[in-house]
Amino acid sequence: MEKDEIVLLKKPRLKKPVLVEGLPGLGLVGRIAAEHLVKKMKAEKFAVAYSTNFPPQVRIMPDGTVKMRTAEFYYVKGKKRDLVILIGDDQPLTVEAQYSFCDNVLDFAEELNIKEVITLGGYGALRQISKKRKVFGAASDKKYVKTLEKHGVLFGEVGGDIVGVAGLLVGLASARGLKSVCLMAETKGNYVDPKAAESVLEVLNSYLELNVDLKELKEKAKETEEMIRRLEAAQRAQQIPQVPKETEPLSYIR
Amino acid sequence: MEKDEIVLLKKPRLKKPVLVEGLPGLGLVGRIAAEHLVKKMKAEKFAVAYSTNFPPQVRIMPDGTVKMRTAEFYYVKGKKRDLVILIGDDQPLTVEAQYSFCDNVLDFAEELNIKEVITLGGYGALRQISKKRKVFGAASDKKYVKTLEKHGVLFGEVGGDIVGVAGLLVGLASARGLKSVCLMAETKGNYVDPKAAESVLEVLNSYLELNVDLKELKEKAKETEEMIRRLEAAQRAQQIPQVPKETEPLSYIR
Amino acid sequence: MEKDEIVLLKKPRLKKPVLVEGLPGLGLVGRIAAEHLVKKMKAEKFAVAYSTNFPPQVRIMPDGTVKMRTAEFYYVKGKKRDLVILIGDDQPLTVEAQYSFCDNVLDFAEELNIKEVITLGGYGALRQISKKRKVFGAASDKKYVKTLEKHGVLFGEVGGDIVGVAGLLVGLASARGLKSVCLMAETKGNYVDPKAAESVLEVLNSYLELNVDLKELKEKAKETEEMIRRLEAAQRAQQIPQVPKETEPLSYIR
Amino acid sequence: MEKDEIVLLKKPRLKKPVLVEGLPGLGLVGRIAAEHLVKKMKAEKFAVAYSTNFPPQVRIMPDGTVKMRTAEFYYVKGKKRDLVILIGDDQPLTVEAQYSFCDNVLDFAEELNIKEVITLGGYGALRQISKKRKVFGAASDKKYVKTLEKHGVLFGEVGGDIVGVAGLLVGLASARGLKSVCLMAETKGNYVDPKAAESVLEVLNSYLELNVDLKELKEKAKETEEMIRRLEAAQRAQQIPQVPKETEPLSYIR
Repeated sequence: MEKDEIVLLKKPRLKKPVLVEGLPGLGLVGRIAAEHLVKKMKAEKFAVAYSTNFPPQVRIMPDGTVKMRTAEFYYVKGKKRDLVILIGDDQPLTVEAQYSFCDNVLDFAEELNIKEVITLGGYGALRQISKKRKVFGAASDKKYVKTLEKHGVLFGEVGGDIVGVAGLLVGLASARGLKSVCLMAETKGNYVDPKAAESVLEVLNSYLELNVDLKELKEKAKETEEMIRRLEAAQRAQQIPQVPKETEPLSYIR
Repeated sequence: MEKDEIVLLKKPRLKKPVLVEGLPGLGLVGRIAAEHLVKKMKAEKFAVAYSTNFPPQVRIMPDGTVKMRTAEFYYVKGKKRDLVILIGDDQPLTVEAQYSFCDNVLDFAEELNIKEVITLGGYGALRQISKKRKVFGAASDKKYVKTLEKHGVLFGEVGGDIVGVAGLLVGLASARGLKSVCLMAETKGNYVDPKAAESVLEVLNSYLELNVDLKELKEKAKETEEMIRRLEAAQRAQQIPQVPKETEPLSYIR
Repeated sequence: MEKDEIVLLKKPRLKKPVLVEGLPGLGLVGRIAAEHLVKKMKAEKFAVAYSTNFPPQVRIMPDGTVKMRTAEFYYVKGKKRDLVILIGDDQPLTVEAQYSFCDNVLDFAEELNIKEVITLGGYGALRQISKKRKVFGAASDKKYVKTLEKHGVLFGEVGGDIVGVAGLLVGLASARGLKSVCLMAETKGNYVDPKAAESVLEVLNSYLELNVDLKELKEKAKETEEMIRRLEAAQRAQQIPQVPKETEPLSYIR
Repeated sequence: MEKDEIVLLKKPRLKKPVLVEGLPGLGLVGRIAAEHLVKKMKAEKFAVAYSTNFPPQVRIMPDGTVKMRTAEFYYVKGKKRDLVILIGDDQPLTVEAQYSFCDNVLDFAEELNIKEVITLGGYGALRQISKKRKVFGAASDKKYVKTLEKHGVLFGEVGGDIVGVAGLLVGLASARGLKSVCLMAETKGNYVDPKAAESVLEVLNSYLELNVDLKELKEKAKETEEMIRRLEAAQRAQQIPQVPKETEPLSYIR
């Protein structure tokens, strides 16, 4: 096995394809959003990415078979443009492997004639997060910034670093002259956050004219919020009195 | 020395060979079972595997010579099929080395015309383990699952990940189109567990028609149990009162 | 992307060029000094160095674009000799990458016909540091030592090891037969130290006849000192009584 | 720079050469012994070994120049056979680098027509160590064991693993068919131990008929013992009462 390897299951013909990435990260925002896209758009798996720096273990599946730790490529035909969606179980485990994995993904993307890369993630909110989650962006170039601002993405409002594949893919794609952006929804990041995933998908719905139904995600978001409320109530009951959380909530920097 | 290297001491002629792997892992189950096979079947060493990611040290042997950290291949003629047994001192120490070691083992296996790989290990029981240890399986494909179920292996009853060579070998063998399975006996994993090794070998006895005598292993199991009983009694004597262990015993996830 | 890669933006014609390096290190001395050189001499960026062992993340810039973690080469024409200045965000993260990064920088330097390498840094003072910071040197050869002593650099007064790129570049350059030196200004190293950067630049002003204005740096140094004074006063106010710091100040070994 | 590189300063003509290795290890025994050999026999440096996994730093020398972290080869003419001595500042820092460094040393040794490798080290004594330090051995083959037993080396008396270059060199040399042995003198290992180095050299004096004067080493040993006695007295004075150390002294497993 090569250090990084992508096995093609089927070679799709794609029209002006965009790559959308959703690997595990803060609040699992990107992963949830990408999974929702695959499910609702009935995207088809067509390639599997392996890395010798994914965790050296296999998952036991319910039917008694095993599954290696991988990332997977799906595609789906769109009205004007086609979508390639990259979903994964893990981030590569070493610094060097982060680079080589991203490079390999981009080589593959260019073979598929992809000229635009959108990565999805969460942005760790230092203060109370908005009811309607903001979506921040960091992109390859200013022209692309202008385009995405029209679809509700906020640029230049936050700083810091984007760690991992979601960030590196944008940096390396940009260095290759590809349009690329990381869309990050506000999240506390201490819980799985479907609400943040919803906001990210609203941007994609608008920009890529996807028309993906978000109802299911809204419901999951409600369930999660309810669960967290109960959890925190239980915690409060145990450890009274507490420092009030309203003024300075937990911060999670991605 | 190459990163991974297998030195052939002798080239055996093999009839429909199966590879059985037993490296150190939870409760040393796989290692003990494989060693018992080698001893009772009088298997012959025919190849040695080196890795630059085995611990960088040598063992001082009783006769004053040194032995590098290695894994070793033995073979033995069977009635219908021949057996190749892989026993090792260590797991490779880095993530990448886990992959490259397994890949190298499979290249070698394919040269030997091996088309089936069985790895042995323990499965960390969260609750009280059965008197007669269950053997769980995770395999390359559903047809193979069906076959092994007839020999007492339980599929689909447990989840989680199989970490290390025992898991990766199955995943990578499967990706090469080889039949492969990891057989895991229930174990607490906090002690060396010959009883679990016994259960795994009962499956092999049945499936491969080996007829290996397990008496010695049964005796070791009794000794170990006796030793543990005394050890735990001594611990109880020192730290009374204790939280009762019956309701939630120590759990070891492999 | 290669492990280490330098992308040329523009090929400058250089007259007897000297390489001056300032990566992050103790008290940020080298980095501050190199940045000051670039700013005051209006040096022009002409090449960018990437490494797969820089942190796998991108910075979100104020204009909404991303910037990969890199090191950058600037050049500026001098009266007698031209200057190439290397500034970076990070040290490479692994031992091996430290070597390969430095080697790559030196290959590039030799392509540019550079025959002299000056690295800048801080030297962790064990005792109270002088008001006017001393500049210690460690060089490739004794003849070069003699030359630099005339410009106020002290050799043979301190011992120990120079860790990281500032040290390795000198060692590896020397092994290639290039003149090389690490200039280290005394610093406590617990705070950003513009005053130490000033001392290092005074040496460069003298040796390379640069005539770089240091006023701005002197002002920053004053501000920093004032800030530290307040900070330490605040600390003293909180934790009286304290062990007197005069006899044995904090020591930072680089 | 290659991962491992040996730069030849001068090509010596050698008569039946033996390689003697002394890198830093337990009690610095091997390093001290090898240094003593070089000094007393006036051995000449003829090659320098680099590794990209030696610490990424340079030493500041008293004359103001820098020295990279290296290992060095010296040679000296003997009556019947010539000696090649390998001395180093550090052990390679990663598992894989331990292997590649040793392999590279052995490639070089074979180019020099070396067919015998002797590594020097300390063996961590679990109990009180003998006044006259025992020297334990672990060798490539039983014939060599027999030879060395005649010179006072004890085989088969201790077990365990020899960690690092001193062990790996013997294992890898043996795998190449070279005679090789690790000579380990008893040591507590918590202090630099010239007395243990003395014992190791007595074996070399006898086996290789070196006739190296050990007086200076004996004196150093006395000084060290005196220093330790004072140090321990001072510690006892501070923390009375103490658990008596005679029954179970500090143990250091190499």
